[in-house]
Amino acid sequence: MTEEANITRVQLAERSYDIEIGSGNLVRFSSFLRQRSGSNHAVLITDTNVDSLYADRLGDRLADDQWEVHVLVVDAGELSKSPEVIFDLWETMLEEGTDRQSVVVAVGGGVVGDLAGFAAASFARGLGFFQVPTTLLAQVDSSVGGKVGINLPGAKNMVGAFWQPLGVVVDVDVLATLPDREYRAGLAEVVKYGIILDEAFFGYLEQNVPAINAHNGPTLVHIVERCCRLKADAVEQDERETTGLRAVLNYGHTFAHAFEAAGNYGELLHGEAVSIGMMCAARLAQRMGRVDQAFVSRQQALLEALHLPIATPHHDADELLALMKRDKKVDAGRLRFVLPDRLGHVELVKDVRTEDVLASLEA
Amino acid sequence: MTEEANITRVQLAERSYDIEIGSGNLVRFSSFLRQRSGSNHAVLITDTNVDSLYADRLGDRLADDQWEVHVLVVDAGELSKSPEVIFDLWETMLEEGTDRQSVVVAVGGGVVGDLAGFAAASFARGLGFFQVPTTLLAQVDSSVGGKVGINLPGAKNMVGAFWQPLGVVVDVDVLATLPDREYRAGLAEVVKYGIILDEAFFGYLEQNVPAINAHNGPTLVHIVERCCRLKADAVEQDERETTGLRAVLNYGHTFAHAFEAAGNYGELLHGEAVSIGMMCAARLAQRMGRVDQAFVSRQQALLEALHLPIATPHHDADELLALMKRDKKVDAGRLRFVLPDRLGHVELVKDVRTEDVLASLEA
Repeated sequence: MTEEANITRVQLAERSYDIEIGSGNLVRFSSFLRQRSGSNHAVLITDTNVDSLYADRLGDRLADDQWEVHVLVVDAGELSKSPEVIFDLWETMLEEGTDRQSVVVAVGGGVVGDLAGFAAASFARGLGFFQVPTTLLAQVDSSVGGKVGINLPGAKNMVGAFWQPLGVVVDVDVLATLPDREYRAGLAEVVKYGIILDEAFFGYLEQNVPAINAHNGPTLVHIVERCCRLKADAVEQDERETTGLRAVLNYGHTFAHAFEAAGNYGELLHGEAVSIGMMCAARLAQRMGRVDQAFVSRQQALLEALHLPIATPHHDADELLALMKRDKKVDAGRLRFVLPDRLGHVELVKDVRTEDVLASLEA
Repeated sequence: MTEEANITRVQLAERSYDIEIGSGNLVRFSSFLRQRSGSNHAVLITDTNVDSLYADRLGDRLADDQWEVHVLVVDAGELSKSPEVIFDLWETMLEEGTDRQSVVVAVGGGVVGDLAGFAAASFARGLGFFQVPTTLLAQVDSSVGGKVGINLPGAKNMVGAFWQPLGVVVDVDVLATLPDREYRAGLAEVVKYGIILDEAFFGYLEQNVPAINAHNGPTLVHIVERCCRLKADAVEQDERETTGLRAVLNYGHTFAHAFEAAGNYGELLHGEAVSIGMMCAARLAQRMGRVDQAFVSRQQALLEALHLPIATPHHDADELLALMKRDKKVDAGRLRFVLPDRLGHVELVKDVRTEDVLASLEA
């Protein structure tokens, strides 16, 4: 364990916050928290997988350092992003004496971050919030940018808030305990950043497939830093997704959310759904004459080299289409998609024809 | 019905919004909405009392003007500010095709405004929100300032957001159908503005008791305008209640919230609880040497002239104290109160002694 860490700063209109990325930097979490909050009460929210691995220990360290700590544990998995679970969290936070001065710390993957973030955003009309992402997907994507929330039946992330953290600590060492399938799912979002914003980074990924598949430490630190910077840039330009600049991050996601909903959030991991969704989006872009077959093949080759799924799941196409029309990115009923026109650049495309969407669902 | 209306503008850091106050101005609501939103889908949220009186008709007028309208009706009363009801609203909004472009319109009193506002703040991470307050309390207080939320068991407004409306339309004509008890409860907040911010306004109220008790129209327009301006000034200085400047609005409210919770939100109207709470706060201030007996008597005389309750409800003092300690205004366990030092001026006072609080509960 080294004590090296780098700071990526997210500069928003009203304030900025730091993402500390490194190896072994979780041991300094208490001082990171202390520097950014006047609180002495931390509510750690985690799940049944991460509790015994990291959250419990992190809570003990904070308690040793004179924090009053409560650790709240939810069931691992997307089904915890529900109204019922958020109600339980609210009631437990109240019972534990949480007040406006308390801070909420998410210790876990995207589900925990989204859920804890919405608890932080809504309890007492908003508490200070910190993220300790423990999956690759959360480290490169969901822990940065302030989108928090829960699902409604059949509609992912339909309830929530924009609630920026006061700080994020990324320790790539925790990825050592991440199941291989979840690691690969995180790589889907990594590939996404190359396609939507950074051709050179896409090339870096192509050239470093063996190191990535071997979980090489310095490679991971570089990847996480680059992804956080790219995401921070997009978020800084469009914090609340009003100008379309932030919407580029949703490449593949309209398809992905439909796949996840059709599978009742239990069939595919989010990153797996994004991998397949990006293939559908690439085919859609090709059908519309925006990219050529070489683009589609190059994207597919990298996803396959990282052992990511690319085949559309076997759900009824009309059901998938109906689910896409419930997506938040729908504009007054018209389907909109983020589509590439070249490697490293995408656009928000409105009024996409239903027949093209249906055709792009087929490989 | 005249078409006269005056605009009070609330100027926030990021944007401003208008409060249109007048008599008969609800008939122009569609154009007010159209000028401030690019939407064509309005979700009107109302309660079982206001639906047939105003919301249904308002919805018809919007539909006549080419809006797609859904009217969602909740049970009248504070018990609707619950997690269960907000879950129902989220699900119904989803079923009705609500998307990011939709707007939410609260048509009702404080309960409907708080509930609809939290639905607007949280659905799709935030929708445009309008208020049509139909009680005096909502017109002078709760519809302005962006505080929205729901209650948890025993803890009022414990979950919510700061979510500013895009506009507020106040038509004093709707007060004609307001039950007398609710009208008087609204007057408690009116008296509050005089005590905390405006000695001259307090004098105006003292001199116009007969006109106020007779629901005189021009008097009401003046009162609503003055209260909205005073509240807007406080909100502009401290939108998220971080500097203490906005906290002055909570005069009497720490006591009031405890009375409401002890009575399970069914015994006292909010304004009635505020009236009694202001008497407790005044006695507390007197005990602490901040005001004299003449201040307490003058406040009591005006409240009594407006037929407002002033006697502490018969609940166990220790229970009330425990409820106060759960209030959001508690600072790391220490009781804080907004207390007057003269008519028209209050301060946030920290570290109030428990024995003084208990004594001030006794008349």
